[in-house]
Amino acid sequence: MNLGVIGLGSMGYGMAASLLRAGHRVWGGDVNREAVARLQTEGGSRQDLAEAAAELDALVIVVLNADQTEEVLFGQNSMASRLRKGCVVICCVTVAPDFARAMEKRCASQGLLYLDAPISGGSVKAAQGKLSIMASGSAEAFAAARPVLDATAEAVFELGDAAGAGSAMKAVNQMLAGVHIAAMAEAITFGISQGVAPETFLEVIPRCAGTSWMLENRAPHVVEGDYTPHSAINIWPKDLGIVLDSARQVGFSAPLTATALQQFAAAADMGLGREDDAAVAKVYAKQAGLTLPAKKGK
Amino acid sequence: MNLGVIGLGSMGYGMAASLLRAGHRVWGGDVNREAVARLQTEGGSRQDLAEAAAELDALVIVVLNADQTEEVLFGQNSMASRLRKGCVVICCVTVAPDFARAMEKRCASQGLLYLDAPISGGSVKAAQGKLSIMASGSAEAFAAARPVLDATAEAVFELGDAAGAGSAMKAVNQMLAGVHIAAMAEAITFGISQGVAPETFLEVIPRCAGTSWMLENRAPHVVEGDYTPHSAINIWPKDLGIVLDSARQVGFSAPLTATALQQFAAAADMGLGREDDAAVAKVYAKQAGLTLPAKKGK
Repeated sequence: MNLGVIGLGSMGYGMAASLLRAGHRVWGGDVNREAVARLQTEGGSRQDLAEAAAELDALVIVVLNADQTEEVLFGQNSMASRLRKGCVVICCVTVAPDFARAMEKRCASQGLLYLDAPISGGSVKAAQGKLSIMASGSAEAFAAARPVLDATAEAVFELGDAAGAGSAMKAVNQMLAGVHIAAMAEAITFGISQGVAPETFLEVIPRCAGTSWMLENRAPHVVEGDYTPHSAINIWPKDLGIVLDSARQVGFSAPLTATALQQFAAAADMGLGREDDAAVAKVYAKQAGLTLPAKKGK
Repeated sequence: MNLGVIGLGSMGYGMAASLLRAGHRVWGGDVNREAVARLQTEGGSRQDLAEAAAELDALVIVVLNADQTEEVLFGQNSMASRLRKGCVVICCVTVAPDFARAMEKRCASQGLLYLDAPISGGSVKAAQGKLSIMASGSAEAFAAARPVLDATAEAVFELGDAAGAGSAMKAVNQMLAGVHIAAMAEAITFGISQGVAPETFLEVIPRCAGTSWMLENRAPHVVEGDYTPHSAINIWPKDLGIVLDSARQVGFSAPLTATALQQFAAAADMGLGREDDAAVAKVYAKQAGLTLPAKKGK
């Protein structure tokens, strides 16, 4: 298949590499020319993505947010007007369900299929082609997207026959993930305040009822004092903002989500926006005057 | 060994049964005479616990809270004054670290050993002798308590040589567990508000980064509409209250814990105190005017 991937950050690049490994022809697009050039050295097409648009069978969008998604499809260099009829747009961006529904409609008006397909799993799984994809869309969109899903995901949840359901499930997952990261931070620092060493916390809690996927994934960053961003603080004001906007529209009160968002926003205000999201522990430590573990060898 | 178990609720009764299976002589004590009589039919001693006190090698306390613990040890029928010197008091109650330290000191003044030994795992694991125990105390207290720990736990975390450390770790675990239950409730009801069926939530989220031990354990109760109490709503205002009291003493701000406590308190105010703690989902559903799954066959 002829495939385009727009947005070659850690998630998009990993997906593009997985598509190349599966034998597809892949065109990469990104404002970061280095990422595009790197994909070309690994087997990506050297032709410009916009010029190849009419030849594509699918366009995978892995940009940062809804605004960038809309710009890619309907902005100055409108990809929607360049793609051939029947091409499928696979949108992997975390967006509001309403936005996904609007994009599906606008794409349909241009003769394009649309798959609402937010992803979960992190950059390591993206590179391995082992993402989880929460997908919804028409049977035609699923059929056209199948080779892409097969090459990039180990689990594809088929959540309905129209855009919106995939993004709704992603919002539910992000709500939990964000609250759990902040809860890990609150608990590991509370532990310090009570004489529980972070290493002991990490030894005991994963074997008790207080554990979570995020705790087991992120608490080691705090224990090691290593805030190299696997997923950055800045993701969370955006993703939890989507959750709270969607909640507000239907009169749903989400106090834990709102509280977690405040903690991530406080971290961003401290200048930690580009650090790993486990750095939200620094908000708690600063408030209470506690010292977190330093990075080994520093 | 000659062992006493005071507090024959679901946790204490399971521990007493496990001790009987291990071949110990067990005296049960509870204000609920039916529980005492039931233990006797299963092999427990028919002698009154208070009368046997001087013969005991260990006294296991599994009552509801700190006040009951203090009453057992130093109240009207003071067990502390009846036990022989060198007997070990194994306190499995969730209490504040400061309270555990005070009890250790008062027991020492009567010649008694004290093990700060809060438990985790639920009533099923209690009955199986497979609890997790977060323990701290002197080497002498651990040595004297060893046969009890061996018969009741699959994991014993040895957290320090003085009371307080065990209770501090338990507080950390309860903080996470309580926040995670409320987060599960917030997410599953938010999902309903966005068109995500609870069954779909339960199918997808445990395979994604948003999962937690508590979510996988409690979300099925919401999906099945079955709020038979495995662990009741009323536990959480108490346990999260202990966390917030300990936090306040050291100037630690715990906003997620405080928010979760509000939701459990709201559930108790709705008359749900004796329902399963997954019923905190009803607080969210009521606020947003959503309908939770009904119990099958009703």
